[in-house]
Amino acid sequence: VTEVVGIRDEIVGKLEQAMAEHGLDALVATSPENVAWASGAAPPSQKTVRSRLAAAIVPRHGESELVAIALEGPVVRTQSRLNSIRLYEEFVEDPVLVFADSLRQRGLDDGAVGIEETHLSYADHEKLAAALPAARLVRADELLAELRMVKTPAEIEAIRDIGAAAERIAAEVCDRFGAGSTEREIANFVAERYAEAGGDGLTMLVVGSGPRSAAVNAPPTGRTLEPGDMLRLDIIGTKGCYHSDVARTAVVGEPTAEQQEVYDLLHGVHRRCLAALRPGVLTSDVYAIYHQAMDDAGLPPYHFVGHGLGITLHEDPFVNALSATPLEEGMVLCIEPLTLLEGRFGVQIEDEVLITADGYEPFTEAGGLTRMAS
Amino acid sequence: VTEVVGIRDEIVGKLEQAMAEHGLDALVATSPENVAWASGAAPPSQKTVRSRLAAAIVPRHGESELVAIALEGPVVRTQSRLNSIRLYEEFVEDPVLVFADSLRQRGLDDGAVGIEETHLSYADHEKLAAALPAARLVRADELLAELRMVKTPAEIEAIRDIGAAAERIAAEVCDRFGAGSTEREIANFVAERYAEAGGDGLTMLVVGSGPRSAAVNAPPTGRTLEPGDMLRLDIIGTKGCYHSDVARTAVVGEPTAEQQEVYDLLHGVHRRCLAALRPGVLTSDVYAIYHQAMDDAGLPPYHFVGHGLGITLHEDPFVNALSATPLEEGMVLCIEPLTLLEGRFGVQIEDEVLITADGYEPFTEAGGLTRMAS
Repeated sequence: VTEVVGIRDEIVGKLEQAMAEHGLDALVATSPENVAWASGAAPPSQKTVRSRLAAAIVPRHGESELVAIALEGPVVRTQSRLNSIRLYEEFVEDPVLVFADSLRQRGLDDGAVGIEETHLSYADHEKLAAALPAARLVRADELLAELRMVKTPAEIEAIRDIGAAAERIAAEVCDRFGAGSTEREIANFVAERYAEAGGDGLTMLVVGSGPRSAAVNAPPTGRTLEPGDMLRLDIIGTKGCYHSDVARTAVVGEPTAEQQEVYDLLHGVHRRCLAALRPGVLTSDVYAIYHQAMDDAGLPPYHFVGHGLGITLHEDPFVNALSATPLEEGMVLCIEPLTLLEGRFGVQIEDEVLITADGYEPFTEAGGLTRMAS
Repeated sequence: VTEVVGIRDEIVGKLEQAMAEHGLDALVATSPENVAWASGAAPPSQKTVRSRLAAAIVPRHGESELVAIALEGPVVRTQSRLNSIRLYEEFVEDPVLVFADSLRQRGLDDGAVGIEETHLSYADHEKLAAALPAARLVRADELLAELRMVKTPAEIEAIRDIGAAAERIAAEVCDRFGAGSTEREIANFVAERYAEAGGDGLTMLVVGSGPRSAAVNAPPTGRTLEPGDMLRLDIIGTKGCYHSDVARTAVVGEPTAEQQEVYDLLHGVHRRCLAALRPGVLTSDVYAIYHQAMDDAGLPPYHFVGHGLGITLHEDPFVNALSATPLEEGMVLCIEPLTLLEGRFGVQIEDEVLITADGYEPFTEAGGLTRMAS
């Protein structure tokens, strides 16, 4: 309970301050990530049935409100940290008109209202504008992304917790499985352990063995591991809305000289990227370390080497050639050098870190190439 | 391969005819469901990273094209049935401008272009309109939903196949598990069997035992089944983009008189709703059968008793009080009478059926209340 209150106070405080700075009277967050961030609630079917919209309505002054579908009232009631909850009946009420009504009741129907232009559909935007003819709808997408970049202490603990669990599970996979195991058996084991660690579920699980270790986002199949296979494992899921994203690469039995060499090279690059992390450093400069090393080694680079991690899997700041975002204390990043030798094998080493005042603190920490039983 | 070709020809044919009837020169489908329906492709991260847009671009005359993110090229290449594939580099190219360019190359930049106003974000709509100043962007949401309502023969086979697998798995759960099992063990078993049946994965799995059987959309927990518990199981997942949605309710050991009575009542309502299905009947009239029976019995009704099933879990036609859609041959529906006695137990009986020329054909068929081992 202490932790939940901590998250609320910090985030509502950030929102109120940001609205004052940007001349906004209210924010209407509608994307699943910003509803979860602002309110703590994640209506389960919001992502699966697009018409089941939810909104976190946060005025600069006064009482905040979560709007959600009535049939998920019992779920969101246990999650929301906003002052009130307003439920709408599917098919009977239009959620966008309920958002408008909630603003009207707060006297904000002629205010400057921050909305998510990259989430709200064109049709819903037109409906909201028509329902609130005196309001000024203002794009708040970038503002929300920026606010979410630097994590609060309670958010940091939530991410650290499930990230550490993902790392333990990956280590356990390397210990328990080997030649003769199937990718599917490994996937079932990961899912079970992830649930035991309190995870909500896996949003994407990569289990790619042999040549499949070189396929992007490879889901588990019935393929059986053989001696000499590389295994690439990427454990992506959530606990209480916050993501884990930890990848490990192992070998079944003894590696070839090339497998060992590519792994060691990636691991060296990984450590150099990590050593560069501190406030003020540009994300594009971290990417340059990786890209240069791949070029020097004649290995195919990937188009990014890291990303922010939080309620969404990939969020600002992006660590690629094009995003020159200065690092700040309190950001949580994944650093994940990757190379995919198509049809042969792939290597990926992904750790989660927190940017601190003078460098970084690892949440997870990959070691050398692990041998699985052959 | 025959099956895939079958799906293509039928769907492209439907699209071309619809565009001719509605005076459209092209369709730009951008929602995951309509991209999958029109092209066969489901770029894996389209649903998890919102900026990774994809589009199925289908002109009334000429060559169709799938636009997708480059890193998922290898995946979509094996799935797409459109004439060409155009890949964009994340961060380097803006997908919406690539859609515009694809239309321009087809000479359609001054045509009537059907778009999905309830999917395309306000920001992306503005960007597309600015990139194609001579084009007329026309709302095609309702048209696409209507076209998708009546399934093609190949679609019907795809849904029948994974629906039958879900029913078998539910029966196997009732056979193998009982008092002393946990919801999580059941969930792991279902996930494993579903993958063995060729499923892509479960999008939502309800395993609610005891009082949890009365909770909407209850995910599995560590709760142990006890004699006298009701178990509600709802197996929702996809195989090759098409959904299964089959729910069963069982009891651990011997039911109380009330449990048996409520189950039998729901089962009777279920059979009466099914018996009413035939072309021309209004969905609201089917709902009325359920709602009246619940009222007569003093049981809490749910706000719908069925829905169309296909690439999305809930799609037109909806079987509720407000949607008076006449049934048509070739529709695939779930019929799922449900009652939730909060804090005590819930009963749900859900089957999948195909509307035929003179009635319906069941894909799955629930029987009486199953006893699990106590």
